[in-house]
Amino acid sequence: MTNNDLRVTDKTRLIRAPERASYDRKLAYEIIDSTPMCHVSYVIDGDPYITPTFQWRQGDDIYWHGSSASRFLRNAAGANVALNVMLFDGLVLARSAYHSSANFRSVTVFGRAVQLEGDEKLAALQQFVDVLTPGRWETLRPMNDQEIKATTVLSMPIDEASVKLRTGGPIDDDEDYELPIWAGVIPVAQTAGEFAPDERNLPGIDVPDHVRRFNLG
Amino acid sequence: MTNNDLRVTDKTRLIRAPERASYDRKLAYEIIDSTPMCHVSYVIDGDPYITPTFQWRQGDDIYWHGSSASRFLRNAAGANVALNVMLFDGLVLARSAYHSSANFRSVTVFGRAVQLEGDEKLAALQQFVDVLTPGRWETLRPMNDQEIKATTVLSMPIDEASVKLRTGGPIDDDEDYELPIWAGVIPVAQTAGEFAPDERNLPGIDVPDHVRRFNLG
Repeated sequence: MTNNDLRVTDKTRLIRAPERASYDRKLAYEIIDSTPMCHVSYVIDGDPYITPTFQWRQGDDIYWHGSSASRFLRNAAGANVALNVMLFDGLVLARSAYHSSANFRSVTVFGRAVQLEGDEKLAALQQFVDVLTPGRWETLRPMNDQEIKATTVLSMPIDEASVKLRTGGPIDDDEDYELPIWAGVIPVAQTAGEFAPDERNLPGIDVPDHVRRFNLG
Repeated sequence: MTNNDLRVTDKTRLIRAPERASYDRKLAYEIIDSTPMCHVSYVIDGDPYITPTFQWRQGDDIYWHGSSASRFLRNAAGANVALNVMLFDGLVLARSAYHSSANFRSVTVFGRAVQLEGDEKLAALQQFVDVLTPGRWETLRPMNDQEIKATTVLSMPIDEASVKLRTGGPIDDDEDYELPIWAGVIPVAQTAGEFAPDERNLPGIDVPDHVRRFNLG
C-alpha cells in the first residue's frame, strides 16, 4: 500500500459531518471489496452523466470496464471521473424527521481514468473474474481478440478518496427522548441467494466452489 | 401521468444494447419505488461529483434532499444533474468472461434540479417519510423552522429518463454450450432484516405497523 491514509483535498474533504468521515485506506478497501457494483460519474460537454457498473480492486487501484462502444468509456480515458461504492445498511428511524437517517458505508474516489491496453488489460479482466469468483477464469472459454477489442478497461489510483459512513441507532435531541415515539433501526443488507444452474449445463457438471461459496460483504 | 413513455433524447437513447433499454414510465416508477437510495451526479467547476442519497417519487417527479450546507445541494439548484436508481439482482456466470454479466434494474433521470421552498418543501419532506414508512410523519415530533431551513429539497420531473435492465440466465455463443463449464445465475437481493428498537424507547411503546411491515422491493 502506498500509505495508510487517503488524500484529503478540496474534493474529498467532508466538512458537514466530520464524525461520519474517514480517510482510512484499509476501511475504504473493506467497503470496496464488499460489493461488486459502483456508480461512475462522467462529464460530457459540460453535463453530468452517471452509470452503474461493476468495479474491482487490485492493490491500490480501482477498475471498471464496459463496451468499447460506450460513449462513457470512449470519453473517459484521460478525463476526470468520480466513482462511488455504497452499501445501504439500514433505515434509522429517529423521533424527529430531521434526525432520521440511513446507515451506510460509502467510498468516493476521484481521479483521471486510465485506459488499459494489451497484456495489462487482459490481466485486469482475469483479475475481475477471479476477485469476484476465485478460480473461475481458468475454467472459462478464453477471451478472443475480438472480445478483448470490444472491451474497454479503465482504472485509477485509490488516492484522492474519502469514506463516509453511518452506523448505530438514532441520535435524537435530548428532550425528544421523553416523547412516546417508537425509534430504532431497520437493517438492510445485500445478500446472495441460492444459485440457479443454467438449464443447458452439460450433464454431470459439478457446481464450482466459487459458486457454492459465493458471498457478499 | 404525463404520458406512458419517457423522453428519448441524445442523453437517454441507449444505442449499444437496445434489448436492455426501456422508456416505459410504469416500469421506471416500479424500479424507483423499489429502493429508497439513489446516486446523484453533479458538475462543479467542470468536474464530476457523485453522492449517494435518499430519493422518493411523488407523481411524475423525483425528489432528493440533504443539508443546506452541502456543496452539492448549494450548487444544484437550477443546474443539470443526472440521477440513477439501481437494483443489483444477481451475477450472470456465462461460459465465457465476455458474456458474463449482471442482472440489474436501473433508471437514469436527467434534468435541471428545482429547489423547493415553503409549504411545498415541507409537504415534500412529509411525503418522503410517508412513502418510506406510511403514516410515520404524524407520529413524529414536528420539524421546527431551524430544521426546515437547514434542509434543502430538490426535485425534477421524470421525463428525460431511461430504464436499463437485464434479467434471466446467461446467453452464450452457440458453440460454447458444448463446453463442460458450469453456467448459471447467483441471485442478489436487498432485504430488510429484523427491526431493532432503540434502547431508550419509552416502556410500553407499540411497534408501529410501518416498522413491522417494512419491506423493500
